[in-house]
Amino acid sequence: MSKAGTKAVQTAVMGVTGYAGAELARLLVRHPRFRQTPPVFVGRAETKHAGAHKAQALGEIHPELQDSHGTGSLAVQPFSWELMEDLGVDVLFLATPHELSREMVPQARKRGIQVIDLSGAWRLEEAENRVVYGFEDEGSDEALKTQDEAVYGMPELHRAEIFGAGLIANPGCYATSVILALKPLVAAGLVDLEHGIVADAKSGVSGAGKAPTAKTHYMYAADNLSAYAVFGHRHTGELLEQVGVPAESMIFTPHLLPIPRGILSTIYARFYEPQTNASVEHVYREFFKGSPMVRLYGAHLPQIQYSVRTNYCDLGFQLSKDGRKAVIVSCLDNLLKGAAGQAVQNLNVMQGWGEAEGLE
Amino acid sequence: MSKAGTKAVQTAVMGVTGYAGAELARLLVRHPRFRQTPPVFVGRAETKHAGAHKAQALGEIHPELQDSHGTGSLAVQPFSWELMEDLGVDVLFLATPHELSREMVPQARKRGIQVIDLSGAWRLEEAENRVVYGFEDEGSDEALKTQDEAVYGMPELHRAEIFGAGLIANPGCYATSVILALKPLVAAGLVDLEHGIVADAKSGVSGAGKAPTAKTHYMYAADNLSAYAVFGHRHTGELLEQVGVPAESMIFTPHLLPIPRGILSTIYARFYEPQTNASVEHVYREFFKGSPMVRLYGAHLPQIQYSVRTNYCDLGFQLSKDGRKAVIVSCLDNLLKGAAGQAVQNLNVMQGWGEAEGLE
Amino acid sequence: MSKAGTKAVQTAVMGVTGYAGAELARLLVRHPRFRQTPPVFVGRAETKHAGAHKAQALGEIHPELQDSHGTGSLAVQPFSWELMEDLGVDVLFLATPHELSREMVPQARKRGIQVIDLSGAWRLEEAENRVVYGFEDEGSDEALKTQDEAVYGMPELHRAEIFGAGLIANPGCYATSVILALKPLVAAGLVDLEHGIVADAKSGVSGAGKAPTAKTHYMYAADNLSAYAVFGHRHTGELLEQVGVPAESMIFTPHLLPIPRGILSTIYARFYEPQTNASVEHVYREFFKGSPMVRLYGAHLPQIQYSVRTNYCDLGFQLSKDGRKAVIVSCLDNLLKGAAGQAVQNLNVMQGWGEAEGLE
Amino acid sequence: MSKAGTKAVQTAVMGVTGYAGAELARLLVRHPRFRQTPPVFVGRAETKHAGAHKAQALGEIHPELQDSHGTGSLAVQPFSWELMEDLGVDVLFLATPHELSREMVPQARKRGIQVIDLSGAWRLEEAENRVVYGFEDEGSDEALKTQDEAVYGMPELHRAEIFGAGLIANPGCYATSVILALKPLVAAGLVDLEHGIVADAKSGVSGAGKAPTAKTHYMYAADNLSAYAVFGHRHTGELLEQVGVPAESMIFTPHLLPIPRGILSTIYARFYEPQTNASVEHVYREFFKGSPMVRLYGAHLPQIQYSVRTNYCDLGFQLSKDGRKAVIVSCLDNLLKGAAGQAVQNLNVMQGWGEAEGLE
Repeated sequence: MSKAGTKAVQTAVMGVTGYAGAELARLLVRHPRFRQTPPVFVGRAETKHAGAHKAQALGEIHPELQDSHGTGSLAVQPFSWELMEDLGVDVLFLATPHELSREMVPQARKRGIQVIDLSGAWRLEEAENRVVYGFEDEGSDEALKTQDEAVYGMPELHRAEIFGAGLIANPGCYATSVILALKPLVAAGLVDLEHGIVADAKSGVSGAGKAPTAKTHYMYAADNLSAYAVFGHRHTGELLEQVGVPAESMIFTPHLLPIPRGILSTIYARFYEPQTNASVEHVYREFFKGSPMVRLYGAHLPQIQYSVRTNYCDLGFQLSKDGRKAVIVSCLDNLLKGAAGQAVQNLNVMQGWGEAEGLE
Repeated sequence: MSKAGTKAVQTAVMGVTGYAGAELARLLVRHPRFRQTPPVFVGRAETKHAGAHKAQALGEIHPELQDSHGTGSLAVQPFSWELMEDLGVDVLFLATPHELSREMVPQARKRGIQVIDLSGAWRLEEAENRVVYGFEDEGSDEALKTQDEAVYGMPELHRAEIFGAGLIANPGCYATSVILALKPLVAAGLVDLEHGIVADAKSGVSGAGKAPTAKTHYMYAADNLSAYAVFGHRHTGELLEQVGVPAESMIFTPHLLPIPRGILSTIYARFYEPQTNASVEHVYREFFKGSPMVRLYGAHLPQIQYSVRTNYCDLGFQLSKDGRKAVIVSCLDNLLKGAAGQAVQNLNVMQGWGEAEGLE
Repeated sequence: MSKAGTKAVQTAVMGVTGYAGAELARLLVRHPRFRQTPPVFVGRAETKHAGAHKAQALGEIHPELQDSHGTGSLAVQPFSWELMEDLGVDVLFLATPHELSREMVPQARKRGIQVIDLSGAWRLEEAENRVVYGFEDEGSDEALKTQDEAVYGMPELHRAEIFGAGLIANPGCYATSVILALKPLVAAGLVDLEHGIVADAKSGVSGAGKAPTAKTHYMYAADNLSAYAVFGHRHTGELLEQVGVPAESMIFTPHLLPIPRGILSTIYARFYEPQTNASVEHVYREFFKGSPMVRLYGAHLPQIQYSVRTNYCDLGFQLSKDGRKAVIVSCLDNLLKGAAGQAVQNLNVMQGWGEAEGLE
Repeated sequence: MSKAGTKAVQTAVMGVTGYAGAELARLLVRHPRFRQTPPVFVGRAETKHAGAHKAQALGEIHPELQDSHGTGSLAVQPFSWELMEDLGVDVLFLATPHELSREMVPQARKRGIQVIDLSGAWRLEEAENRVVYGFEDEGSDEALKTQDEAVYGMPELHRAEIFGAGLIANPGCYATSVILALKPLVAAGLVDLEHGIVADAKSGVSGAGKAPTAKTHYMYAADNLSAYAVFGHRHTGELLEQVGVPAESMIFTPHLLPIPRGILSTIYARFYEPQTNASVEHVYREFFKGSPMVRLYGAHLPQIQYSVRTNYCDLGFQLSKDGRKAVIVSCLDNLLKGAAGQAVQNLNVMQGWGEAEGLE
């Protein structure tokens, strides 16, 4: 199913006006596999960003993408399925609202186009977890069939299924940060689920999107910290399904940090049996063997700064003296490992290329 | 005309939803003259902020105004002239868009209500300078009559006229910062106007208003600096009229700083004759004698931090070795000395009270 | 024991060079009880800050304290016990390192001077908790006697003992934020201590002190977030003693936030029995009846911004659907309610004055 | 003199502990010309950073340099000339204090090693401009001889001389930003030097270096803006010499911005004759023909954000209505085009490689 070495892969990106879309554009334009077949950028035909059915230069939307690669002068064309066919698009990235992804993905799949969807539209296996999204097509045959095909796009957990997949549901930024920290310990049977897990997560403002709102106003976010969506954040379902713990075992609380980008999650767990730094580090090292995008700090703690503008998830931990309690710190860039970077990582795995290609 | 000592003064504030309005509310509620007659807060009858003709508590709009003074539970009532009359309002503060101030001020004056207008509606004497606002009533008899009555509300320049005035045009934030720095030197005949003056000003994001826009988004403002409105900022007319220099002598450039509040203006002037630190300091000290709201740093330089959350304008300067060139640094809080604080200072002078009452 | 109404109280402040000391100076100079008897500021005789045995103006150390109260020109004199006696000092504030407080407090008490100590020197009742400080005089008769006399200076918990006390140990900033959030719920017997409590706290950089270090460098703190002192922060002992929970029940993790001031603590607890918003709010309202410095947000969440530059501790919470899990958010200004403001609050209670005097 | 295509070039970097040194390490490790011959990192033998004569891993000094290139595990070895010879170093980068560069450069040149010096040691041709540095060896034969050989390392001005040069004096960050904005206009004879030029520059905190000082403390820099070194900044001499204007024609004022990195300079000039947007843009386009590292915005204005983390200098301008006055805005990253990036650009030109190699 890999196309490595056989033919050029044509990619298209829908939705480059947002922050994740801009990062995706930047990464793909520089990706060594696309020197001959540059990615195509498309936008909603009706939106003003797509220029009323006229192509608009990427650099007009994101002046910082102007560079000697010519990224800035690449056109953003109005989307149509005809255009996708004319261009022979093999892989379509969707950096679109989840409602739009629900609509577009089944149509792309019918046309045989592989999809990497950055929205939350296809991430959740359990209907009860999908309730928070209120999908209009919930329960329809088409939606269930598409959902069945979807692979949760976290290579560290699902590398084999991502290879050659038709639909990759790219994980949420908070979810990536918490799942990578917890999954190895839970999978190894160390964590006392009765005692419960706390994931206290903090994200920079780019996670709130590019639309100007009261919450993204500089005066609201700067010199401030606030908790939000307590007991109700949409990424909670991903956490539960992927880590594999019951809902009553986990509290997840996001906070809005006064920084542009980056997530730090502080995660609290108790162990059934006392552990040592060495035993915990061993569990992590085994789990992430062959995963180039996780950096392990052992019994030291990473900071947000180290991971920002990289595609790494940085993991470190500290144990209580009795070895029964752990504080795990997980850091990543919400726009890279938490969105566009992980999407490119998924593309690499999907196509059978080097997992870190184009990501450094 | 002073009411000092004779009767209580009833104030009303229109437009408390913005940043300057909130500061005004905070200052007036704590002002020692209003312990018995608290200020009244009003909003546009039709706006959602005024709660669809129902009173709304101030603390719902600005949670940070919740305090043991009960500021948070004060009602914001829908505005009407009947309400003004029923409440016996003596002084009306307008923290409203300039178009609304153009409408409301003549009506307030007909009713004998004194007005302190924080907008740019009545600040400019010269019709050519008013062009940038595009007032609909420009040139009408009523507008010209109202303009005639207006006093530019900078006590350091116009203290005598402010006392008892019917209409005070509260200055712009940038304008305050530049005028206070330049007026003493220009008035003393020191500045070589042929050589031209440069005012390079930098303001925090609150100066851009509370409406969420692309420019007030945290991601735009943070870790950034940008110049804007070059050769075209609306405060330029105030500068020219109040400092008393021809348009060709002055360049004024505002910048958006990644801080919540505060303005620092760096001002460049050349002198006809060589000056010394002592001679320049003397000019400033003489000019600001009796002005409690200007702090002079002499040949040292103030910083934005020192003036933020105060009503002071801080002034310092440095001279070139030959004494012919000066760099003057002027700092103030754009919401206080640049808006609400200066409005209260004007109220104090207007009423014949201590100029700094309620401002520390 | 109260001196209210009887005679003027002379205060002195040792250690105004730091951030808490500067806030204390600012508050005391404006305090209505000290209009006739302004506070005296003293510094270590040998330090350069105290000006080599010469008095130095407060405004030279903290330019932002220059104001029309004349705060800036108040002298900082070299400390000596003779000076304390000559000036008739009744109450001595110590904003000094804990080692110095250990030395000075017994000597002050011998002279009958009441002390409000902002350091950690006398906060801990249990010797095992004091180990983290490594006090040299630990276990000496004098130290034990002084410790016996110390009252933990949190008026919301110990109001009666603070009144007239000889030695007040002013609480730590993190500790204040966590204790006020947890004590009411634990005291009411709601919290399941078996399940454990997590306190995930985040503080602005002023909490790290004024000394320039690698961690207080702008490049380290800005655009960053880091956890530190995991399982080992010195405030942990205060939490345990004052909340009244065993060490194994609590994990406390501090983080360094990229903001100048403010603490937000997110606290996770499980209840023995399901609770409702009303039942939890009732517990808080009962506990804080008569406590003017705690603002209760009920089932809403405060943000750091609301409490910064106030002496309030803001508390809000959210419950899980089953009413068994609570997330409590506690915000305060680390330099005010977390240090200097609480010290003045303690002074007010100690002297029998209004608890909020001089704090708004 | 070019070594392009003939043999591998061995580079060494002295002084990687600072911000510019770290950027240099990052750039060189990724540079396509050094895949076979990785750069060598050295530090002062006696410093603790160099690990007491033992090699230390780069990742211990800069954790953010840990990556899959293995940058983090590269050793920083104690410097010695023997080591330079043993390793066959061709090009030595000095990211060292200027005093150390004064000592080391003549010795490197004696050994035939090409030097790219990031300090201010060899940038100034005029002895009167060097006075601000107070060089101990000023006027010695060796110093004068070395100075004679030095080329000011701004490829946009001195490309031909940089090719094959023995000693490149890498420009100052502020100087780069101002010179690139002004040189084309002054060289074209447009600028009225009688009227004087104002360069009002603002830099992020990394420009102040990595040493923790009162000025780099987060509490000093955050939420603040301050002017410094007015009429006395060391980069002034570079500006005058390279732009080619007399000292009395230029005022240069630096400010400390509350951002990690980036410089924006706002430059004010008057023209002898009225200009148009087209005529000014033409002058810039002609001057920077063949210069890949300058992006021209024409009559639009760049912002700091666009250039941060790139090696571009972004230039835009606006003219007054009469075409006689210009405001030019110049933005760059002080650690890249203002330091390490320009150093690599100089290396590329020196060696006859593509000017932008390894810089995107």
